[in-house]
Amino acid sequence: MREQSDKFHEECAIFGIYGHPEAGNLTYLGLYALQHRGQEASGIATHDGHAFYQEKGMGLVADIFSQDRLNRLKGHAAIGHNRYSTTGDSVLKNVQPVMVEYALGTLAMVHNGNLINTDLLRDELEAYGAIFQSTIDSEVIIHLIAHSTEDRLLLRIIDALERVHGAYCLIFLSEEGLIGVRDPYGFRPLCLGKLKDGFVLASESCAFDLIGAELIREIEPGEVIQINEKGVFSYKPFPKTPTAQCVFEYVYFARPDSYIFTQHVYGIRKRLGKELAKEGAVSADIVIPVPDSGVPAALGFSEESKIPYEIGLIRNHYVGRTFIEPQQSIRHFGVKIKLNAMHEALEGKRVVVVDDSLVRGTTSQKIVKMIRAAGAREVHMRISSPPILSPCFYGIDTPTRQELLAANKNVEEIREYITADSLTYLSMEGMFRAVYHSESGENYHFCNACFSGNYPLPLTEKQLQLRLFEEGKS
Amino acid sequence: MREQSDKFHEECAIFGIYGHPEAGNLTYLGLYALQHRGQEASGIATHDGHAFYQEKGMGLVADIFSQDRLNRLKGHAAIGHNRYSTTGDSVLKNVQPVMVEYALGTLAMVHNGNLINTDLLRDELEAYGAIFQSTIDSEVIIHLIAHSTEDRLLLRIIDALERVHGAYCLIFLSEEGLIGVRDPYGFRPLCLGKLKDGFVLASESCAFDLIGAELIREIEPGEVIQINEKGVFSYKPFPKTPTAQCVFEYVYFARPDSYIFTQHVYGIRKRLGKELAKEGAVSADIVIPVPDSGVPAALGFSEESKIPYEIGLIRNHYVGRTFIEPQQSIRHFGVKIKLNAMHEALEGKRVVVVDDSLVRGTTSQKIVKMIRAAGAREVHMRISSPPILSPCFYGIDTPTRQELLAANKNVEEIREYITADSLTYLSMEGMFRAVYHSESGENYHFCNACFSGNYPLPLTEKQLQLRLFEEGKS
Amino acid sequence: MREQSDKFHEECAIFGIYGHPEAGNLTYLGLYALQHRGQEASGIATHDGHAFYQEKGMGLVADIFSQDRLNRLKGHAAIGHNRYSTTGDSVLKNVQPVMVEYALGTLAMVHNGNLINTDLLRDELEAYGAIFQSTIDSEVIIHLIAHSTEDRLLLRIIDALERVHGAYCLIFLSEEGLIGVRDPYGFRPLCLGKLKDGFVLASESCAFDLIGAELIREIEPGEVIQINEKGVFSYKPFPKTPTAQCVFEYVYFARPDSYIFTQHVYGIRKRLGKELAKEGAVSADIVIPVPDSGVPAALGFSEESKIPYEIGLIRNHYVGRTFIEPQQSIRHFGVKIKLNAMHEALEGKRVVVVDDSLVRGTTSQKIVKMIRAAGAREVHMRISSPPILSPCFYGIDTPTRQELLAANKNVEEIREYITADSLTYLSMEGMFRAVYHSESGENYHFCNACFSGNYPLPLTEKQLQLRLFEEGKS
Amino acid sequence: MREQSDKFHEECAIFGIYGHPEAGNLTYLGLYALQHRGQEASGIATHDGHAFYQEKGMGLVADIFSQDRLNRLKGHAAIGHNRYSTTGDSVLKNVQPVMVEYALGTLAMVHNGNLINTDLLRDELEAYGAIFQSTIDSEVIIHLIAHSTEDRLLLRIIDALERVHGAYCLIFLSEEGLIGVRDPYGFRPLCLGKLKDGFVLASESCAFDLIGAELIREIEPGEVIQINEKGVFSYKPFPKTPTAQCVFEYVYFARPDSYIFTQHVYGIRKRLGKELAKEGAVSADIVIPVPDSGVPAALGFSEESKIPYEIGLIRNHYVGRTFIEPQQSIRHFGVKIKLNAMHEALEGKRVVVVDDSLVRGTTSQKIVKMIRAAGAREVHMRISSPPILSPCFYGIDTPTRQELLAANKNVEEIREYITADSLTYLSMEGMFRAVYHSESGENYHFCNACFSGNYPLPLTEKQLQLRLFEEGKS
Repeated sequence: MREQSDKFHEECAIFGIYGHPEAGNLTYLGLYALQHRGQEASGIATHDGHAFYQEKGMGLVADIFSQDRLNRLKGHAAIGHNRYSTTGDSVLKNVQPVMVEYALGTLAMVHNGNLINTDLLRDELEAYGAIFQSTIDSEVIIHLIAHSTEDRLLLRIIDALERVHGAYCLIFLSEEGLIGVRDPYGFRPLCLGKLKDGFVLASESCAFDLIGAELIREIEPGEVIQINEKGVFSYKPFPKTPTAQCVFEYVYFARPDSYIFTQHVYGIRKRLGKELAKEGAVSADIVIPVPDSGVPAALGFSEESKIPYEIGLIRNHYVGRTFIEPQQSIRHFGVKIKLNAMHEALEGKRVVVVDDSLVRGTTSQKIVKMIRAAGAREVHMRISSPPILSPCFYGIDTPTRQELLAANKNVEEIREYITADSLTYLSMEGMFRAVYHSESGENYHFCNACFSGNYPLPLTEKQLQLRLFEEGKS
Repeated sequence: MREQSDKFHEECAIFGIYGHPEAGNLTYLGLYALQHRGQEASGIATHDGHAFYQEKGMGLVADIFSQDRLNRLKGHAAIGHNRYSTTGDSVLKNVQPVMVEYALGTLAMVHNGNLINTDLLRDELEAYGAIFQSTIDSEVIIHLIAHSTEDRLLLRIIDALERVHGAYCLIFLSEEGLIGVRDPYGFRPLCLGKLKDGFVLASESCAFDLIGAELIREIEPGEVIQINEKGVFSYKPFPKTPTAQCVFEYVYFARPDSYIFTQHVYGIRKRLGKELAKEGAVSADIVIPVPDSGVPAALGFSEESKIPYEIGLIRNHYVGRTFIEPQQSIRHFGVKIKLNAMHEALEGKRVVVVDDSLVRGTTSQKIVKMIRAAGAREVHMRISSPPILSPCFYGIDTPTRQELLAANKNVEEIREYITADSLTYLSMEGMFRAVYHSESGENYHFCNACFSGNYPLPLTEKQLQLRLFEEGKS
Repeated sequence: MREQSDKFHEECAIFGIYGHPEAGNLTYLGLYALQHRGQEASGIATHDGHAFYQEKGMGLVADIFSQDRLNRLKGHAAIGHNRYSTTGDSVLKNVQPVMVEYALGTLAMVHNGNLINTDLLRDELEAYGAIFQSTIDSEVIIHLIAHSTEDRLLLRIIDALERVHGAYCLIFLSEEGLIGVRDPYGFRPLCLGKLKDGFVLASESCAFDLIGAELIREIEPGEVIQINEKGVFSYKPFPKTPTAQCVFEYVYFARPDSYIFTQHVYGIRKRLGKELAKEGAVSADIVIPVPDSGVPAALGFSEESKIPYEIGLIRNHYVGRTFIEPQQSIRHFGVKIKLNAMHEALEGKRVVVVDDSLVRGTTSQKIVKMIRAAGAREVHMRISSPPILSPCFYGIDTPTRQELLAANKNVEEIREYITADSLTYLSMEGMFRAVYHSESGENYHFCNACFSGNYPLPLTEKQLQLRLFEEGKS
Repeated sequence: MREQSDKFHEECAIFGIYGHPEAGNLTYLGLYALQHRGQEASGIATHDGHAFYQEKGMGLVADIFSQDRLNRLKGHAAIGHNRYSTTGDSVLKNVQPVMVEYALGTLAMVHNGNLINTDLLRDELEAYGAIFQSTIDSEVIIHLIAHSTEDRLLLRIIDALERVHGAYCLIFLSEEGLIGVRDPYGFRPLCLGKLKDGFVLASESCAFDLIGAELIREIEPGEVIQINEKGVFSYKPFPKTPTAQCVFEYVYFARPDSYIFTQHVYGIRKRLGKELAKEGAVSADIVIPVPDSGVPAALGFSEESKIPYEIGLIRNHYVGRTFIEPQQSIRHFGVKIKLNAMHEALEGKRVVVVDDSLVRGTTSQKIVKMIRAAGAREVHMRISSPPILSPCFYGIDTPTRQELLAANKNVEEIREYITADSLTYLSMEGMFRAVYHSESGENYHFCNACFSGNYPLPLTEKQLQLRLFEEGKS
């Protein structure tokens, strides 16, 4: 059993470092700090001025990289990737970095995000003689670079990305150093840091904390950063567009101790809880979080509502890997494997339960029942984000529309389904009030397609069909 | 790197079940719920009326027991064990259950605790021709049973245990069913539960929650419980002594959602925090726990002191296994691998940090520095138990006296060592006020040797020498 | 699929060395040279004057002992064991050496052979309080030693072995050095060698060739050899009996390049072929061996008969491990996985096929068919030992009487079953003419129970019952 | 330690099957029978009309393909490959089959041989935008196919191969079936067989024997074979050239029970021995082979010379995998790990030792010493092929010229180096007399570049430089 979770799944983390004698080791540590963004597989590529080295494997960072493998990752420059499969099968050849030989030498690349016009590009590239060895859409970018007629890698990358639509943060490793790119919409985060004489790129700033690097700033949407022995150079080659940063990074994906999209995540999550307390006020004895993702919002809810914060659910810290569910009558432990309700804290209480989001509702239903079985008198579910109505096409592994509870039931029906005494979602305005610390609740820079169905990039025909088909069905 | 921790280490969990067709599977789940009591190795033995089956391995429960191995564990009766090595080397032959052939047939046993007179007994048994194949002291009990001249297993067990001194909870599996024993002092916990027509024994009640069993009661100190097809039978064959339950189970070992020694653990931990707030009052902006063990006491501290509870340290949930620390200049991550301080929550704040205990002080020092580096103005360390002065001889893996910070420094010196602005330990009276919900602070039923040096059982000559030697040194 | 073979299986190899700084490494090499005597599991125990070390595993020597494990096997004294399971289940705890703590300290032991009165001794020992942790009968010897009241190990070993009946070569490792024993009947071989200042014991002399040791002599039946820092001491404590060395060691078990029972094996095998040529003369074009065990006898047959020796069957050298037979229509490859018949050598020929023994007949049948399919005009099977009529109780893994082809069919029926044009077994007299280089064909010193049913040691009641039961059935 | 061998190393085996419901299983068995041609890695790709499946691994066939992996290899069509690395690093991504997506769909390919103009083609392809993900030269062929403008795969393959120079046997798997190709020079063998309604391709006919397929004929040099549901179709699209089949396949590579280049291998090897006996006559007591490769030639030598054939060297059958040589004083076992000399057969004898080839001479030196140490009076080395003077550029892993003993010493110097009493190589004429059963000794159809330095294909500049450089050095 993979960790069953009533959450969206993040797909990837990327990391890169240039100018440090232990680039491989530091990439290993960076990926370790970013493990929450992808647990399926990891890989690291390094360069030492002479040769390129690469190690990949399925599983967790700490299990893949033995001392031997780390020793083989020589060099002063490195990139790495944690993968949570969104496109491509779960096989080793799909694990990043992608490393190839092409006209200008060796090139390795890591990618966080999801492209939306790869089918078209793939057909076109194959017509020109391209062969594809993996099923990941990132391979298309490499082919576009290889087919570019520019004579410098930087120009080839820009050339290639002009053809590509979708969400991407990329780091390239070549003999010349690193090149980092964030797409013009800025869907996914990418930060720049400094460690002694070297420079570091990472999906989230929490990776810098572990290795002792200093956060300089974030790569801007549409920015291309070149890092080599001469320093860091910034380019803005793409036409300006309104940004569409993923608001769900704030809601759930990012680690609370990270700084992304110019703000600390933890503070926003607490404010989401405060807004939620305003919108979903209820008379209760205690506020408890669904650990660990609900903790900051529950604290915010408690502060705002003055209802005492309590620990009502205990998390088993040995979950997170494969767990064999015995195959007989005793089955379907689901959330019990991960959480246990504490009788002492809950008995006789009117309980507010705070979670960050509600996707399929199956886990929430089990949690409500578990809390009630532990003696709670009332169970009020509060969700610190709006109902999720639409799938994500920009790099997040979301269920189909049919599995999205809020796409098929109204709030009252959902409440009934999860058997709570009351249920409140945070409103869209409430969410953006928390994000912008303002009263307006308007959205300036963020993608909220999963809550609203407003996709910043036009959908492809295939995606439209999928959507219509699902709407027809539901 | 094993999880580095400034904690005592628990040694073992035991589990047994009789009268359920999936005894093996349920034991697996029970051990999984008790994983916090031992992560070094696990084993399960079962009986199906005809044969005995056994599977053992090094590592975590979820990694050891594949579907194949679980399928081989047939039968309606089973016992299991999680080991954190206290005595005996880390090799497979030392992993429990111990299973042997002897005059009355097959016998398997699991043991939680530590005996103090095994050396003597071992010499004596060897003089009678006994051979020892493991280095675990539990093997002595088996030999005493085999050498007993009684004709029934129950009587042989009682016979054997009359010769043994120390801490033990035991479960035996034979063709006749289970026999559970808790030593007369009651050092370690052992609970009795019911699941459908079957009965269950477990170190802590949290194991019952996972498998859906109902807690009936705890096995009493000195009680022998026989479980077979006719039901559950209780015996009290040993002379009555004052009990000496391990108070550290409340302080740190047990899971907060467990019920042991007739009380819920979580409630006691919160009260320890409240008492601590009374004794260690300080003017501050926020109270933060050292996750996860400090959480209940920090909540109690916050409730009592009215200082807001905050999350200041984020835990990386992928720690807990071996983690390779790269072997070069970047070293000694220590607690950084596990915890990160949140700037946003801590910046400019006067911070109370609550932890449950302080053993070597190395981790506390790093935590204080980390919090200060994240911008805290003041860092006040509060420990929800008294200073640890003496090693444990009853089954807990403690450092030697030289490594125990409080055995060698006074509180002010410790404060200086960990670089905190202030440091308060909970007093012995405060601890027992929390345990008994009373104002007296007197200790009636608990062993507090690690805090006081008062050992309920006389020390052996070897232990005395060790102690004197260490005192002479320190 | 384990290597399917129409052969008896040897059970064990033992090896010991004293007085060499690389005792562990040399034991590893010795076991490697003795791999043919047991491929199921191996183990090594060493002593360095201070501590004992032990490494064991399932599988082949070269797979079990990594560099790390070899490095841990420190010391100047070592013993080792290759196991082909005869008694006891295939689990790690049954892998030798057996190592125990007892009244005189640490004792490790390896055993090649099979005891016939262990059931009785086991009951008796259990009545005295002994516990058994493995299912191997060797454990009984250890218990007898532990229960002996003698004060020196040597005397305790002699004491213990006076109670034991059966076949055994033993090597003990203690703090005082090595003690080697060969049972009074001398069923199994044991050789003494010298390497620089150290002494070596091994089941066969081929182990000495690999490590560069010099063969001194064989341990005599009933001899006890003590090897320590003062040198080698010989004792003959047991009453003299007629010897009963296993003639099957010459027929099949021993490596042809070994010297055992005072003779070279290869020469005897060639003479077995020569005697066979006299007894089974036939008009034919070529003589081919069943590789590799039939090669020396086939050469002898060719020399005597003047029929040219040829290679007709090619062996696939990558067999010998587990081989997955695909589980569908294409099945039962059996011998085809191992052998292929060469059309060019066989086409149109009258072929004599020489094999060393014929147990179940299934392989022989497939070989005859394979040779005929390759174009042979006639196939004459010649077996360089007599028909096998009875199981072995002295340490060889033999099929039950029902599976022994010759116990249930006469020679003509066997010929028909294996579809050969003719079939000749070597006669008992022929075999002993080859063994003694004499015309008499009389047997002086060898056990031939498998060919004759004459057991040198009286059978136990259980074995008698088994035998009668089988005879009644067949 | 990899099997140390004083031999050339073969690089690859290929296998394909179309029209059998167990194509994957049969490919597994075919690769198993061809294991001698490559032990580093293996892979299988299959097609079931809907999807393609692929499994690869490092190591031996029997270790890589578990039942689970075989079950995943569904379909009626399959190709497989055993690899002995000649070009490309030892990593999984270099293991064949290569499987890609390109303009016409999915294409998988296996390759036995070595191309000589890949550097040039690679540069050219990269200039057209091609990216390379492996370091094997076979990837170039795939790119040429993808860049071809033909609209059918068959035509694209022909198109691509017109650009390629070197040695190649190829099998392609696509949705339409199999396409097999043998290069115009016919360097490497490729056979066509029939199994029920399906057709089979394999490097050597011994693979057909194991799966019960019937050998139809060999693919001719320059022939392209298409196998699909309509049957087998043959094309000869390439200009006719003189053939240059690898004579070393007869000397050493092929299994003796195979039929390749229109002849049985075993017969040729015996005739090589007979010719050798004529050229290298000597007065001696016995002829012994170096097992196992020298056996047929030794038998031929014995038949021709009338000197009796004997077994003087015993092979340890458990070699062939990694073997850890203990890292201390006892080192450099080399050939002793694999072979042992039999005193009884050799003592006092004048011995002719027959081996098939002599590359570096180190093994031969050890063998001569070993035979002499076993008591041989004289040791006469006879090699059943000419001295090896030049490296192979057509797919065989040969040492550099400096390591080739015969490129640097004359026969007398070599004799001295290996310490033999006499040494004779077979002459070139003798070799071709054996190959053609004729008295002329002329070479009509074979490549003998390694013996003569006459390369059938012009060398590239790089190879010429390498050659000159080495000549300058030596």
